[in-house]
Amino acid sequence: MPTTNRQVRLAARPKGLPTAEVWEHTTEELGEPGPGQFKVKVTHLSLDPAMRGWMNEGKSYIPPVGIGEVMRAGAIGEVIASEHDDFQVGDHVSYAFGVQEYAICDGDGAYTVDPDKAPLPTYLGTLGMTGMTAYFGLLDEGKPKEGETVVVSGAAGAVGSIVGQIAKLKGCRVVGIAGGAEKCAWLTDELGFDAAIDYKAESVGKALREAAPKGVDVYFDNVGGEILNTVLTQIRRRARIVICGAISQYNATEAVEGPSNYLSLLVNRASMQGMVVFDYADRYGEAAKEMAGWLGEGKLISREEVVEGGVDDFPETLLRLFRGENTGKLVLQLS
Amino acid sequence: MPTTNRQVRLAARPKGLPTAEVWEHTTEELGEPGPGQFKVKVTHLSLDPAMRGWMNEGKSYIPPVGIGEVMRAGAIGEVIASEHDDFQVGDHVSYAFGVQEYAICDGDGAYTVDPDKAPLPTYLGTLGMTGMTAYFGLLDEGKPKEGETVVVSGAAGAVGSIVGQIAKLKGCRVVGIAGGAEKCAWLTDELGFDAAIDYKAESVGKALREAAPKGVDVYFDNVGGEILNTVLTQIRRRARIVICGAISQYNATEAVEGPSNYLSLLVNRASMQGMVVFDYADRYGEAAKEMAGWLGEGKLISREEVVEGGVDDFPETLLRLFRGENTGKLVLQLS
Repeated sequence: MPTTNRQVRLAARPKGLPTAEVWEHTTEELGEPGPGQFKVKVTHLSLDPAMRGWMNEGKSYIPPVGIGEVMRAGAIGEVIASEHDDFQVGDHVSYAFGVQEYAICDGDGAYTVDPDKAPLPTYLGTLGMTGMTAYFGLLDEGKPKEGETVVVSGAAGAVGSIVGQIAKLKGCRVVGIAGGAEKCAWLTDELGFDAAIDYKAESVGKALREAAPKGVDVYFDNVGGEILNTVLTQIRRRARIVICGAISQYNATEAVEGPSNYLSLLVNRASMQGMVVFDYADRYGEAAKEMAGWLGEGKLISREEVVEGGVDDFPETLLRLFRGENTGKLVLQLS
Repeated sequence: MPTTNRQVRLAARPKGLPTAEVWEHTTEELGEPGPGQFKVKVTHLSLDPAMRGWMNEGKSYIPPVGIGEVMRAGAIGEVIASEHDDFQVGDHVSYAFGVQEYAICDGDGAYTVDPDKAPLPTYLGTLGMTGMTAYFGLLDEGKPKEGETVVVSGAAGAVGSIVGQIAKLKGCRVVGIAGGAEKCAWLTDELGFDAAIDYKAESVGKALREAAPKGVDVYFDNVGGEILNTVLTQIRRRARIVICGAISQYNATEAVEGPSNYLSLLVNRASMQGMVVFDYADRYGEAAKEMAGWLGEGKLISREEVVEGGVDDFPETLLRLFRGENTGKLVLQLS
């Protein structure tokens, strides 16, 4: 049995990109679960753009990770000791175990997942917070109607790739905005998007006029910045913009770039709505069931980019998100 | 009977403030109404911040005023000749007659108003487009609930002063943002606002923390710019921001200032919704009836700042809006 636990802690609040200096790598004695607790070996860590926000001080939708605390991370762990009735040794459990090799948990908010029904990384992606964000953000906040045009940015990312596929399932015309020809080809050739725009290679404004000739009914925004500002110029009347994230701005060292075209909301009687997936917690089951059904029928493709390494590789793996290197859900599988 | 008609036409698209050079003053022969038409002497012109937008080229919620065309303006006119069954000589009629002394009209969209029930300028203000904008913008877009905190900018203006009073009638805590001590005193002492912030004399952020200690549930924005950006930092969860206008930006010669704090929408699951009053045209009657009732019972105070002059005084009177010189609805009464 292991006796020590390797961890990655937040050592300082980053200015700009979260580079190596903001992390502290620690090794602790590993204890045993008490009554009502269980112990896991963490097998998979979820890497999410939102992590960058959790590292900032100040009021947000969730308290910031404190200086000196183990970095918060969604994860899958395998139970290796248990004093908890609901979790048995050998169970695979999803919970925010954090960036560490082992964790002791009282089970509140944790749930078991079945590796026979879907690969474990999928429970962090399409069947986890990522998929829930896409599902509720698109359907409940964006409210797409059949025949409408849905545009999604960060389209080859974990959330965006699911958003676009659900929009297709709902009968929408779907345009993805992503960085790079390979990602764009994946969107149109594999995922069935109607069009993809490579923001690194072409003018988003011009390409969008061609790809969404009737204008944009729903824009699901993961990136913010200049792309949000451009899409604002092409929205239709009563368009809905879902603000899910703003990865282009998370590491800004200057003030966030505000959408100077926001008066297009007025002209078009459109809305810009922020969303946080936690608000839908009581409906995760419903969404996971429907998404699992789509996965089983082959109507929804879940892609995870699984990086193998140790917890010490977390900081470098996280940076891949901000460099736009991942396609689909980025997962660190602890070996 | 008059034989000529003095008019103010748009001669050029303004860059920045609409100064004298953008206008052309013309005198035309005045004709007679044909069958199904009537002729009015224009008695009152409505001055609205939205006019600045109508002067810009490009797609908006209404076509721009063309170069060489009589400037569009909401107005009241008295019928002086009629070949129309619904409009008789002596009737007072509300319609977008434009900035001219006389107009011939086929009646489509025009309606008679009764000077015995309310002063004629009130039909351009509280009982006109202005009041409709306040009523539907607040109640249908902002959806305030009793006990919530409603903040309105441009609060001593035509729309803002009505928004705040309706919010009070609905049992909300109401904070107005306006420029100058006199305007602020009017809001709290005469109109019953709970607090007023003089943005010219104090820090809006600091004053708002005191005036809205629980945060902002509904923000009705008439001004945009820095004030919008500041209010965004103090919204509550599921707050609704109604984008009605952005007078601080209408004459900008650089790019409009975007709200860099827009990610507060995400954190707070809040929305920013644009509105255009024309969408509520089929419910104007309902709103006007309720507002007239409130006026009659003394529950709603309608203030018009009536400037007397000729149509040639329109350009200079319009500038008063952008200098923030008016309290309540600005009306040019043609003498």
